[in-house]
Amino acid sequence: MSQELDILRAINPFLLQNNSVIVGPGDDCAVLELPSSNSYNLLAAVDQVIEDIHFTKDTSPSLAGEKLIKRNLSDIAAMGGTPLWALLTVAWNNKNNSYIEEFCKGCANAGQKFNVPIIGGDLASLAKEGVCATLTILGQVAKNKAVLRSTAKDGDTIFVTGKIGNSFYSQRHLTFSPRLKEGQFLLDYATGMMDISDGLLFDAKRFCAASNCDFYLCLDDVPIHDDAIRPNAFSDGEDYELLFTANKSIMDIYPKDLTPITPIGKVVKKDNKKSPDDCKLLDINGNPLNLEYMGYEH
Amino acid sequence: MSQELDILRAINPFLLQNNSVIVGPGDDCAVLELPSSNSYNLLAAVDQVIEDIHFTKDTSPSLAGEKLIKRNLSDIAAMGGTPLWALLTVAWNNKNNSYIEEFCKGCANAGQKFNVPIIGGDLASLAKEGVCATLTILGQVAKNKAVLRSTAKDGDTIFVTGKIGNSFYSQRHLTFSPRLKEGQFLLDYATGMMDISDGLLFDAKRFCAASNCDFYLCLDDVPIHDDAIRPNAFSDGEDYELLFTANKSIMDIYPKDLTPITPIGKVVKKDNKKSPDDCKLLDINGNPLNLEYMGYEH
Repeated sequence: MSQELDILRAINPFLLQNNSVIVGPGDDCAVLELPSSNSYNLLAAVDQVIEDIHFTKDTSPSLAGEKLIKRNLSDIAAMGGTPLWALLTVAWNNKNNSYIEEFCKGCANAGQKFNVPIIGGDLASLAKEGVCATLTILGQVAKNKAVLRSTAKDGDTIFVTGKIGNSFYSQRHLTFSPRLKEGQFLLDYATGMMDISDGLLFDAKRFCAASNCDFYLCLDDVPIHDDAIRPNAFSDGEDYELLFTANKSIMDIYPKDLTPITPIGKVVKKDNKKSPDDCKLLDINGNPLNLEYMGYEH
Repeated sequence: MSQELDILRAINPFLLQNNSVIVGPGDDCAVLELPSSNSYNLLAAVDQVIEDIHFTKDTSPSLAGEKLIKRNLSDIAAMGGTPLWALLTVAWNNKNNSYIEEFCKGCANAGQKFNVPIIGGDLASLAKEGVCATLTILGQVAKNKAVLRSTAKDGDTIFVTGKIGNSFYSQRHLTFSPRLKEGQFLLDYATGMMDISDGLLFDAKRFCAASNCDFYLCLDDVPIHDDAIRPNAFSDGEDYELLFTANKSIMDIYPKDLTPITPIGKVVKKDNKKSPDDCKLLDINGNPLNLEYMGYEH
């Protein structure tokens, strides 16, 4: 479609590449200089943003594009990795060219701040009104060091970076900073890690199940934003903070210039677990958290 | 959404991994064993399929999913590469679980045939009726050997693999085989290469512009399918055959067990080109091809 060619021409100057990109957008594939295979593993993830689901018709297209890449950068952060490259797709109907161009530029510019070029992509038409965009992020992490959600250890303290809650209505779901520096520092200390996208409790439940543990949480200790409300903050989602497990002593060495971390609970590993469904979120006295009341099932 | 969890549970057994995948679907990122950075470059591309655009409501979801990954495998083939991993997203509205499961299984099973696991992905809701799916393909190619569309050489012969035309109505756009073996053989011989997705003439025009050449084409020599019609076949698109340039002598050594290749023209590089728009498709006598008549502007 000629609309696609016009948009590509308009956004191309914003798709800045770097030395690791041998061939960027425009060929059948991007061709990339691999990190040293003796020192690194490759990381890969993909995420979507959809109009009326992840952003609204009122959202600036530039911020919606920025959100898309930052969601993915947050996934790299949650492994302790460094982002390298991104691929972008946008499918839409009933938007003018400048809307799509602003979306793509917002995405490319936000990537640029982290030295992540958009190395490829695709633009297409949707049959019905809307916008559906995806971003694939590629990154690297020190070999065999990626911090997983399946490796929380018995006796570890559970931490969260920053504050959570009310991200969507406060617009923080658009303006947040992915915790890349924090994740990279934690690479050497965290035993398990994930980012909080679906709400603290929902994600903590996934985390403890993946690690075959119980998580004892002291929800009173969880820092929430001034405009957030307990207990809603624990399930609002879209926080993009890091939830991780580590020895409590990490607090003595955690750098002051990074987003603060707060201990919010403790990992207890039991040997008699039969399935991930047996893993529980408990309060600090060992009573099951009333997840339904917390809005867990959303 | 609980629909997402049910679908993930159903498709998970079909997402077979291999030894290069250290952590597969389920964590924030997949963690991957890199190919040797001394011997290989990484390849990356992304493509979409959208209901009512790239397949119809009548298309079997399994075949639609298969088409999605094969389109991307064709991009790896067009670089002379070997596919390694794929990431899948599906966004939909108004489809039942089994439709989405069949789509994902069709995609995963087709990848499996080429030893390409689905290492990650995302499922989401669309606000309006439809299906929008994307696949990111990652692959490897011998270092500094990827066959580009910008490197066709003066005097080279232009070749096409297989036959073209009428792919959409014949359903070949769903059932085609990506030309991976052919691309890998051509790695050592082709000077330039791309796959034909938007029609022979449209793609040949891109190819000659990228290489700053004129392409002299003998359209009478282009093999078309029995059910295709000249000249429509030259712009029907969705052929997923390879269009490449090489020394004519390649015909003497091209393996008999691969999809046959046919010479269809000649590359002429001129030094006085000022912009890609100056690059032309010409008939074998040097007269400009009447692209409009050929349905070039679609």
